[in-house]
Amino acid sequence: MASSGSWFDSCSDIQGVLLDISGVLYDSGAEGGVAIPGSVEAVKKLKQSGLSVRFCTNETQCTRDHLVTKLCGLGFPVQREEVFAPAPAACIVLRDRNLRPHLLIHPDCRPEFEGVDCSSPNCVLIGDATDEFSYKNLNEAFRVLVGLQDPILISMGKGRYYKETDGLTLDVGVYMKALEYACDVEAEVVGKPAKAFFLAALQDMGVQPQHALMVGDDVMNDIGGAQSVGMRGLQVRTGKYRPEDEHHPSVHPDGFVDNLKQAVDLLLQHRGQ
Amino acid sequence: MASSGSWFDSCSDIQGVLLDISGVLYDSGAEGGVAIPGSVEAVKKLKQSGLSVRFCTNETQCTRDHLVTKLCGLGFPVQREEVFAPAPAACIVLRDRNLRPHLLIHPDCRPEFEGVDCSSPNCVLIGDATDEFSYKNLNEAFRVLVGLQDPILISMGKGRYYKETDGLTLDVGVYMKALEYACDVEAEVVGKPAKAFFLAALQDMGVQPQHALMVGDDVMNDIGGAQSVGMRGLQVRTGKYRPEDEHHPSVHPDGFVDNLKQAVDLLLQHRGQ
Repeated sequence: MASSGSWFDSCSDIQGVLLDISGVLYDSGAEGGVAIPGSVEAVKKLKQSGLSVRFCTNETQCTRDHLVTKLCGLGFPVQREEVFAPAPAACIVLRDRNLRPHLLIHPDCRPEFEGVDCSSPNCVLIGDATDEFSYKNLNEAFRVLVGLQDPILISMGKGRYYKETDGLTLDVGVYMKALEYACDVEAEVVGKPAKAFFLAALQDMGVQPQHALMVGDDVMNDIGGAQSVGMRGLQVRTGKYRPEDEHHPSVHPDGFVDNLKQAVDLLLQHRGQ
Repeated sequence: MASSGSWFDSCSDIQGVLLDISGVLYDSGAEGGVAIPGSVEAVKKLKQSGLSVRFCTNETQCTRDHLVTKLCGLGFPVQREEVFAPAPAACIVLRDRNLRPHLLIHPDCRPEFEGVDCSSPNCVLIGDATDEFSYKNLNEAFRVLVGLQDPILISMGKGRYYKETDGLTLDVGVYMKALEYACDVEAEVVGKPAKAFFLAALQDMGVQPQHALMVGDDVMNDIGGAQSVGMRGLQVRTGKYRPEDEHHPSVHPDGFVDNLKQAVDLLLQHRGQ
């Protein structure tokens, strides 16, 4: 673990970079959120460097299309095909296993599930539903689960919280834990830190894990998840980062940087670019 | 573990009985809920038998006074002093430790905390807040906790769910788990299954644990909690009871009965009453 530029000496073999979005590119919040200073230029430089770049998000408050539109509006050069998000991944799981979900998700994420059969649900699928996480709605999801012989709970992420422009905010993982406890089940996570999620993005880049770097603000889901498939994980001190993260009991980031700008500058500098 | 009357042969030394309320005396729900058939007569017979009787509830949707009024309205002979509930127990904890709570509780439970200093909170106290468990309110409690150097979370119960007249319903424990996960803390539980809670009721009766019986519908909180202090625990097949409870991995009730009526009939019969 290194807190300065020295660690980047070992990064000359990096061929692909996965970037978390919220807390690395921008802080979400009212009126679309704000770009983190230096991040727009950093993404541009990274994409111009010849390294493969993908965006790996657990965002489920909106569709992937909407997210891309928002990021482009903030000045980020991002294309739909470069973004890996839990909702499209969840749709594949539902289809492959013939699952009919009871959805407890954000209204703006619903279009991702258009055409999915939700009649007589045989599982519950939750996302970052924010205000939709009312007592009534959580109870409804609970009743579906508790009524199933083999309760299946699928959660689009397991994050504890993220940073909005007005402060830290509860994430979907908190409600996943609530339903797990209520029904004595273990949720299946789609999105970070699930290995399959990172591997799909790596496969799309055509890069082996040992040649790939994840940059994120979530020590468990970004760094721990990436390391679990053999990638390196670089923690930024933006977004939900808190100083305690540098002494996490189980996850030890390969490196720390103040922000994405510093990460990209050091990475390219140590590649001689 | 016995499912019939034979087990009651060993009950001749019982001197005091603790009764859970919701799911044993009545099922809560709209318009005050309904008495479970036979329970009113059973409580009357038990109190006339000369055995000590107390009511041990995790009810935090209303004040103790309101609960007693409701039970009396359903025909149960219950007095305020005989009811042990988490809110008065929580007030003692707050006072003894100089804690100023951020309250996330049911509006009808607030009068129990009249006079409690809630300024500059240094802990979060949650109860069965039902509809007050909105995303906004849970987030507010989370922000208080995450802002404390040593986060203290006090939960009035840790139940998963209970039975309302229209079905199973999420209990406070589910939200306790949610906040525990969000803040990486362990809650302190006031109410069942905390040992101190059972011991207070036993002390009030002047009965030793080995001479006392708990009758409840919650295998973990009623039966497991009572057994943890050396009492015997009798599981009723009313309220939230589900057949799986008879094969619980860690808690093994001392006996099972169909309902409180059967429990009291068998108990008194085997005492020769």
